Amino acid sequence: MAKILVVGSLAYDDVQTPFERKKRVLGGAACYSALAASLYAPVSIVGVVGTDFEESDLERLHAKHVDVSAIERRPGRSFHWAGRYDYDLSSAETLGTDLGVFGDWRPQVPDALADTPFVFLANIDPDIQLETLEHVRTPTCVVLDTMNFWIDHKRDAVARVMSRVDVVSVNEAEARQLCQTFSIVRAAREILALGPRALIIKRGEHGATLFTKDGSFWSPAFPLEKIQDPTGAGDSFAGGFIGHLARSGRIDDIELRRAVLHGIVCASFAVETFSVDGIEALTQERAVERYRGLRSLVSVEAGSTSEADPFASARP
Amino acid sequence: MAKILVVGSLAYDDVQTPFERKKRVLGGAACYSALAASLYAPVSIVGVVGTDFEESDLERLHAKHVDVSAIERRPGRSFHWAGRYDYDLSSAETLGTDLGVFGDWRPQVPDALADTPFVFLANIDPDIQLETLEHVRTPTCVVLDTMNFWIDHKRDAVARVMSRVDVVSVNEAEARQLCQTFSIVRAAREILALGPRALIIKRGEHGATLFTKDGSFWSPAFPLEKIQDPTGAGDSFAGGFIGHLARSGRIDDIELRRAVLHGIVCASFAVETFSVDGIEALTQERAVERYRGLRSLVSVEAGSTSEADPFASARP
Repeated sequence: MAKILVVGSLAYDDVQTPFERKKRVLGGAACYSALAASLYAPVSIVGVVGTDFEESDLERLHAKHVDVSAIERRPGRSFHWAGRYDYDLSSAETLGTDLGVFGDWRPQVPDALADTPFVFLANIDPDIQLETLEHVRTPTCVVLDTMNFWIDHKRDAVARVMSRVDVVSVNEAEARQLCQTFSIVRAAREILALGPRALIIKRGEHGATLFTKDGSFWSPAFPLEKIQDPTGAGDSFAGGFIGHLARSGRIDDIELRRAVLHGIVCASFAVETFSVDGIEALTQERAVERYRGLRSLVSVEAGSTSEADPFASARP
Repeated sequence: MAKILVVGSLAYDDVQTPFERKKRVLGGAACYSALAASLYAPVSIVGVVGTDFEESDLERLHAKHVDVSAIERRPGRSFHWAGRYDYDLSSAETLGTDLGVFGDWRPQVPDALADTPFVFLANIDPDIQLETLEHVRTPTCVVLDTMNFWIDHKRDAVARVMSRVDVVSVNEAEARQLCQTFSIVRAAREILALGPRALIIKRGEHGATLFTKDGSFWSPAFPLEKIQDPTGAGDSFAGGFIGHLARSGRIDDIELRRAVLHGIVCASFAVETFSVDGIEALTQERAVERYRGLRSLVSVEAGSTSEADPFASARP
């Protein structure tokens, strides 16, 4: 199976919900997405941490076979995010962001990783995402995430980097904001017109939608009775999504649709616990079980599928 | 194909959106649901209208092969509802309700209709729904709708009638309210425990979910770029849903899932125009086309389906 490169943040998060509060737990887009993707294929992270970053946290990533050798350690504080969720556990209110060493970091892709075929560019300044694209050679598939801040402040750069990648992943509000329309369908058409092969619009508790020139695919979220912490759902989604593509090696509409379901599965495990704990503890067996459950939720002819075990080749 | 009986309101509606305003347009649960169901199978309405109800509006129903012979005309005003939608065109704010002759009406099911196998009990006082059930003889399938007002004021009667029907159809907020939980999954389990074979939770712009003891099926709404008037979406859904079941004659999980898609298709045509105009103008050809489109939005292996033309038997 093909290798994956994740470029993004490693962070410590303070997270509040109406039910619980956690301080300085492991987070960051690269952590969530790499842990999810590592279930599917070998993953390397290009990232940066400060002097306060615990060696044991790098060890947690390494224990899940995530290559941490291209994570730089720099003098200063690690990226730190504090946020709060209300009772509906949907969108977060940011209480504070301390970029620390992440603030003026420019990702350096080591030569040994420059040929990695699958690349996830997690949320960061779109100009830096464009720079990073210069350092990877003819990747098979680049998946891009961004956020409302960049759409507000660097709309042109966001559009430029979207035009250079294979898959754009944004949430519903960001898609509407970028295209200044309420209609998701219209927003999707405009974003696809920028050039990406596929667009994913993440809809939180309502699931995610894939748009390509050939149509769209609407998956619900995996129905959970209990959610502890929505932080990292989108990045875990991206990890499962690119993980499946790297594992299957094909990027057609069917594999993209399956990849969406894998993304949803990973996100569901991420939100069941605080921090990366749920996605860290996830096994292929549990992911497959939930994947099959999710497939049945969108299958009209319930249970009928010709699809083989998605992890089959890694098993006896 | 089996026949359908619809018991519910015929009304005149005043509808406001931020974009337009309509006065005294044809509405009411029975009108929307019967017009939708008439696409699939023969439908009769048991209902009541006042002296102000236009003969031409009964003629509109009759023109779509809806049997209007069991609609009583009584001295007094017809049911009149006035409501307003905000920019998101989701939930309505009721500006006024004048029940008129509907207020103290008790549905009389004529003997000739008492054996109708498929019955839709549209929203009305749950005690009256229970009474109505006494007047139908061993129906194959009864579909029930209700609303927040009855859950607030007659919770026990609502639970009692739910325990006596085959399919309960409520919206997300009503399910949460009835079961006093945020979790849709938990609410579904509790409502199914009352006895119905299936539960539909309508989720507005996010689609609808079917729950049975064997699993759940999550359909998105049909993605539309333009919505004019959400009034009647739920009743049009119910019409398409029961219409498909009556047409197919089978009530298993596959047909229930297909019925959900037919419901979504009918709802999508209803909301594209004010009043019943969209559902009145709908043809089998256009419904099939949109049904196929909707299927592809939830099919992982895009486009592959063994399903025959849903209206095939009615065609040359």
